[in-house]
Order: sequence, then C-alpha cells, then structure tokens
Amino acid sequence: MKPTVSLASTQSSVPETQRVHVGMIGLGTVGTGVVKVLQQHPALVLDQVAVRDVTKSRNVSLPASTAVGDDPFVVVRDPNIHLVVEVMGGAEVAYELVREALTRKKHVVTANKELIAKHGPELFALAKDHGVRLLFEAAVAGGIPIIMPLKLSLAGNRILEIAGILNGTTNYILTKMTDEGWTYADALKKAQDQGFAEADPTNDVEGFDTRYKIAILSSIAFKQAVNPGDIYCEGISQITPLDIQTAESLGYTLKLIGLARTPETGTEALDIRVHPMLVPHDHPLAAIKNEYNAVWVRGDAVGDVMFYGRGAGEMPTASAVSADILAIANDMLNGNVPIPAMAMDFQGSAKVLSATETVNQYYIRLNTTDLPGVIGNLGKACGEFGVSLRSVLQRGTATDGTASIILVTHGVQEKQLKQALAKIESQETTREVACLLRVL
Amino acid sequence: MKPTVSLASTQSSVPETQRVHVGMIGLGTVGTGVVKVLQQHPALVLDQVAVRDVTKSRNVSLPASTAVGDDPFVVVRDPNIHLVVEVMGGAEVAYELVREALTRKKHVVTANKELIAKHGPELFALAKDHGVRLLFEAAVAGGIPIIMPLKLSLAGNRILEIAGILNGTTNYILTKMTDEGWTYADALKKAQDQGFAEADPTNDVEGFDTRYKIAILSSIAFKQAVNPGDIYCEGISQITPLDIQTAESLGYTLKLIGLARTPETGTEALDIRVHPMLVPHDHPLAAIKNEYNAVWVRGDAVGDVMFYGRGAGEMPTASAVSADILAIANDMLNGNVPIPAMAMDFQGSAKVLSATETVNQYYIRLNTTDLPGVIGNLGKACGEFGVSLRSVLQRGTATDGTASIILVTHGVQEKQLKQALAKIESQETTREVACLLRVL
Repeated sequence: MKPTVSLASTQSSVPETQRVHVGMIGLGTVGTGVVKVLQQHPALVLDQVAVRDVTKSRNVSLPASTAVGDDPFVVVRDPNIHLVVEVMGGAEVAYELVREALTRKKHVVTANKELIAKHGPELFALAKDHGVRLLFEAAVAGGIPIIMPLKLSLAGNRILEIAGILNGTTNYILTKMTDEGWTYADALKKAQDQGFAEADPTNDVEGFDTRYKIAILSSIAFKQAVNPGDIYCEGISQITPLDIQTAESLGYTLKLIGLARTPETGTEALDIRVHPMLVPHDHPLAAIKNEYNAVWVRGDAVGDVMFYGRGAGEMPTASAVSADILAIANDMLNGNVPIPAMAMDFQGSAKVLSATETVNQYYIRLNTTDLPGVIGNLGKACGEFGVSLRSVLQRGTATDGTASIILVTHGVQEKQLKQALAKIESQETTREVACLLRVL
Repeated sequence: MKPTVSLASTQSSVPETQRVHVGMIGLGTVGTGVVKVLQQHPALVLDQVAVRDVTKSRNVSLPASTAVGDDPFVVVRDPNIHLVVEVMGGAEVAYELVREALTRKKHVVTANKELIAKHGPELFALAKDHGVRLLFEAAVAGGIPIIMPLKLSLAGNRILEIAGILNGTTNYILTKMTDEGWTYADALKKAQDQGFAEADPTNDVEGFDTRYKIAILSSIAFKQAVNPGDIYCEGISQITPLDIQTAESLGYTLKLIGLARTPETGTEALDIRVHPMLVPHDHPLAAIKNEYNAVWVRGDAVGDVMFYGRGAGEMPTASAVSADILAIANDMLNGNVPIPAMAMDFQGSAKVLSATETVNQYYIRLNTTDLPGVIGNLGKACGEFGVSLRSVLQRGTATDGTASIILVTHGVQEKQLKQALAKIESQETTREVACLLRVL
C-alpha cells in the first residue's frame, strides 16, 4: 500500500509524482468558484483553462503557470493533464470534448446535467473502457450531496421513490405566489430581477431543467439508462394564485416535482415525470422555500430520507465539483483504480410509463352553472369511470352565475380520470375544467 | 485493472476469489436487518455469527453454512473472515474485539457510537497501520447518510457549523410536549410505551447519546480528535410545557441540539456542546418532528445543507451498515486499497470551549415581585455586564403577586450572562430564575 497523501498539505513544493494536473473548460461563475477551492490544495495543479473570451476580466486570479486559451480541445489533448473539469455547459461541444478526454484516458468532472442526461450511458461506458472516472455530483441539485449518497450510502437499499424540488427558479416563483399572493408573471419578473431566472426562462419554468435532473437521479437509483425525452413534463407557467390558495386551504403546498417510482406490480416500466404537484403540508418537501432544492428518497431499508440545500450558485456548485475532483485526486495519488461502486453500470434502457398510465390523486377546479344537481352530475360522471371522490368543495358563485367547484379524487389511473373529465366537459352544466393538478 | 464485479449478481455460484467472508457480532434488531440485506448479495458470505444466547429464536433465517456461537473472539480470530460487522453495542468488549479484528487485518463495520466516540482516534490509526478500513456510517443518525457525505461530498468545504437533532427519543418527547401540550413525564412514558425510549432513559434524555454523535461528527468535520468528555452536556428532563409554549409564541421551537462550530477568531478551541435550544421557526431544524433526526451543516462553499431521515430502527440502521459493507466489498473485489478520503487522519486533539466561554442569545424566564421598577432593575443588571436585551415580555401576575417575565438577549458570552443573572438573583424583587435556555 502506498502512503496516504494528504491533499490538505500546506507545503508549497509538492513533488511531481504527487501532483494532479487539472485542465478546466469554462471559467464562468462555477469555474471561478472551483479555482478558488483548487487553490487551497497544492497537490492540484491547474495547467490549462479554456475560455470563450480570453480578454474578459475575471473575478479570480490564476497562477502565472496556468495557460489560458480559447480552444478547449487544446485542454483535452494536453498529454500532461490527468483530469478535465468541464464547466462550460451546453450539450454539443461539451459532448465532443468529454468524449475525447475520456478516450485519452483523462478523468472528467462535469456539472453539465444536459450532457449527463442525454449522453450519460455512452460516456459512462467510455470511461469504464478507458479505466477513468466521470463524476457529476454538481449536475443535480448543485451543492447538495445526492449523487454519491445515492450510489454509495444507500447502496443496500432498493430505491422505491424519489421526489425532488430540483429547480430553484421555479421554487422561488411558487414560494412567492404562495406566501405573498403574487401572480406568476410578477414572481417571474422578480426572479429575473434578482438573478434567479434567466431572460428566457423556458428551460426552468417548463420543467426541462428538472427533467434532466430526475432522468439522472432515476438512472442511478434504478440502474437503467433513462432517456429524458421519455419523461412527461409539465411546467408551472399556467399556475394561478387562486389554485395555490385553494390548495393551501385544503392542506397542500404547490411545488414543481421531479418524481420517479419503481413500477407497481405487473409492469416493468418506471413511473418518472415532472409536473406541479400538491404536496401535503406534513410532507418535508412542503417546507422547502425560495431558491432551495431538496431531494426526498424512499428506500426499502432506510425508509424516508431527505437532502436539502442550495441547488445552484457559484460556491455551492463549486463545492460539488470540488468534491469530485478531490475524490479522483485521492484515488490517483494513492494508486486506486476507479471506485467500482461509483461506476455507472446500467442494466439496459428504462421503459417509462406514459402519463395516462400513471396513478394519482387529482385536484380539479371546475366552473359550472349554479344549478341544483350539478354536483350529482359530477359524481355520476366520476363514478362511471371508476374515479372515487375524496372531497368536493363549492367555492361561492360569480355574478354571472358561474359556480367554482373543487374536486379531490382518490388514487386513479390518469386514463380513467381523463375519460371522466371528458364526460364532465360534455355535460351542459359544465362551463370549464379550469385546473387539473396531481397530488403527491 | 481487474474486472468490475457486480455485487448485485443473482448467480448462486460465485467463485471463491470473488467472495467476501463476513463475520457478525450481535444479532439483535440491527444485526437481523443486516442479515436480510446481505442475503441479497451472493458475493457476501456470512460465515460466523456470535450471539449472547444461541438458544434464542431470531426473526431471520441464517444459511445452513453460517456457524452460530456465543464467543465473539472466535469470529475475529477466524482466518477466513475478511470483514467483521460489530453490532453488539457497549464500549468495553466491543473495543477489545474491534482492536483484535483490525490487528488481524480484518475490515470492520460498526454501528457503535460509544466505541467510535471514545476510541475512534486509536482505532482509526490501527486500521490505517494494518491497511484495513473501519467504517461507521450507522453510528450517527441511523440510516441518514451523513458520515460519507461529510467526508467525501463536502471535502471541498471548510465546515463552519453543524447543528443536529441526533436523538429520536428526545425529539419525540419534545414534539409531543410542543404539539400536544404534554408534560415531560407523560411524553416520556408514551415514548417508553411505544418503544422509542428505554426503561432507563438517562442516556437519551440527559444528552449523552447526542454527545457521542456530535463528538464523532465534529471530529470528522474539523479533522481533530474530539473527546466526548470535554463536551458540555445538558438534557431535556427539566423542560416544562410552559417554556415550550412561551418559546413557540416568540417564534421558536425547542429542540435538543448537538452543536459544533469552528472557533471565532482569536482562539483555537472548538465550540461543541449539547443542550436544548430555541430554534427559530424558519430554520429547517424547527420542522423536524417526532422520532426523526436531521443534521444541518454549514460549509464555506456549499452554504447550508441538511440531511434528514430516521435516526434509528432495525432497517434504517441496517441500511447504513450495509452501505459500509458493500463499499468495502467493492473495494476488496476490485483490488482497491482503502479509499484515503475515507481514512480518518486527525491533526491532533481538539480543544473545546467551556460552556462559560461560548457566545449565545438567551431566553430567560424569571419570577419576580409585581412591583414598579422591576423591569428597570433587570435592565440595569443586564447592562452592567454587557448583556443587551432583544425583547422583554411580562406574562401576567399570579395570585401570590409573582410576575413572570421573559427576557431574550442579544448574543453575549455565557460568563457575562451568568454574572448578570447572579446580580438579578441578588435583587430583592427577584423570586427565582426559573428557566435559562440558549437560542440557535
């Protein structure tokens, strides 16, 4: 056994055999944070950094020995570099770069959720074939330790369910709509003003960002390659303060949830989806506010566990990237082969249930005429398609004679629910099915 | 690189070179759960189990090939065994057994917090000298992944603070006192009836269990050997429903907290202690109810993260023990040396602040005479010793003329606070300092 080398050494002269040469692609917010952490570990030598614009001034000082260029392929082709840190984002060029780095037997650490969600299975196989590691703790939920705990600390469990608040922007918007009564548009604008939301917020608010993340989490939990394109995805842009407040009064908080469940008996497909959900007030996810993220996991042995923290930001994300770099550096300096439990071995590709095959409780808000027998009609339509009602609530009548009725169902397959809704919509007393939400 | 062996193989005939021989000491609740998990991994062969009473019937069926005896030293001396699982508890015999197992170059997995808290530094050094691993995920917070995340996933951080609800029994009691208004005695009795508390609850309710756990967490976080005996410890047996309710009305929930902080500037000592604390309602720890545990960690890069789940119980604890077993087995089968990041290298022994040196905000409930000038006297005594008041609340007057006054202070060193309290107690208008609690 070789002697253990402390990465926390403060000695300035680390012998060459005890150095890990690092190349970094991208020096934005996250990259800057990573450089700050690397500088505390003399064994980690930052040889090369590739940036888009070499003339741009940065909020970090690089060592004189670090070469800064604008061609990222120079970094992955540098024979001296052991470990490539990819923090540039985007799936196309990053894919080419990571492929080439792995093929050249360089370890890779990435924060790129899109890359891992879309190309993970191929890249993990490539890393395994070349005896190097591809780690991505920062790709899901920023600084919150979730990838490594899911792979290692919960390895003795069969994972039954994951429910995550995985996007800080949408959680901020929903929190403000809930606590302050703001409209979606106002909350989005405030999020943009505060830097929590991008000018084009589509990726966040329509759930695509969450979809990448739940694809990655479920592929680890269920050991199958999950194609993000197979995952049903619905965002929060249609949510109204009225439904948030009504849900609150019924004991639920509205959250955008990335959900993944092992199959009910009788089917091999996984139940994975992204959509707003009513979370019961006594569920730990209901208390996650503002830009915070949380991942709730149910295992057959451990029961319920939850991981909570900041899902984005310079230093939280740098914390996760750094942990991966230090894990690889520790292995390298002590002659370890890649930790097998950290290898991603998929047992084939996942089949994912279509939305209509999933089973849920539902919250339905209807506008109807305010006539006797309306609720009887609703109950009849539900009963016809096996939809059992848990509660029925009539909320006043508008001046035009429209009554607002809230139904909460027991668990039922979405196909049957949709049939019942079609029947309800065809009833003369129904003006509009104004809102349909699922309950966690 | 050797080929990666999947521990999840379903083949019944695993070649001898791909087997890990396990010996288990103790077959109580946790041991039984571990056996159930081991049985799902054919590469893990349970050769020996040592129990106190071989005639006792168990809620698990062992393979015919497993030898069951009552001498645990037979297990640690068996030359075929690679890995010893110690789930017997207690610090004395377990210490001898673990010492001997490590000396004989056997990996050890333990759930024994007392053992690790008291003898960790010596045992970690022994494991390192003999090239084997000593893992203990289950020793703190049961099934919640915290040891491995703290060592690996947060390795890029300087840990600034840990605050944990680390004991399910006391959290259950405090939750019932808070939510149901029960007395301490009633809540304890209910916890005992439900199996959450032992017949002699001293270890839990006086904070000793929490003290072992915060000693372990802080030794990992601060990389120093922390002696549990150096940690100030105060339990919950003196807590009254009155103070819980008063604190609630002021915006705080009372919790038993294991706290560990890096030093303020100007001192090398760590601030580690165990006592009840008023947790602000908007702090994530305030929402942790009943027998659940949670560990809140602040790192310089990651910010605030929290780990939540069941802190005890057969299967949650077995989940943590199994993760350690699988990590070691994966390493062994693939020829890894111990993961250095998982080795415990302490940079000396920790100095711990005495309680009087710590700085806190305080909640103080006083009984005074109901005379004019009382509050002025209190304010004067506080001012004299640099204690600044954040709020003062008078809560009615009893028929005997006793007024109940609540003070909440700004942050101040406990030494000064105690001087101010001595002064207050000496004032003629003071009948009693009825309660003193710290604020998180």
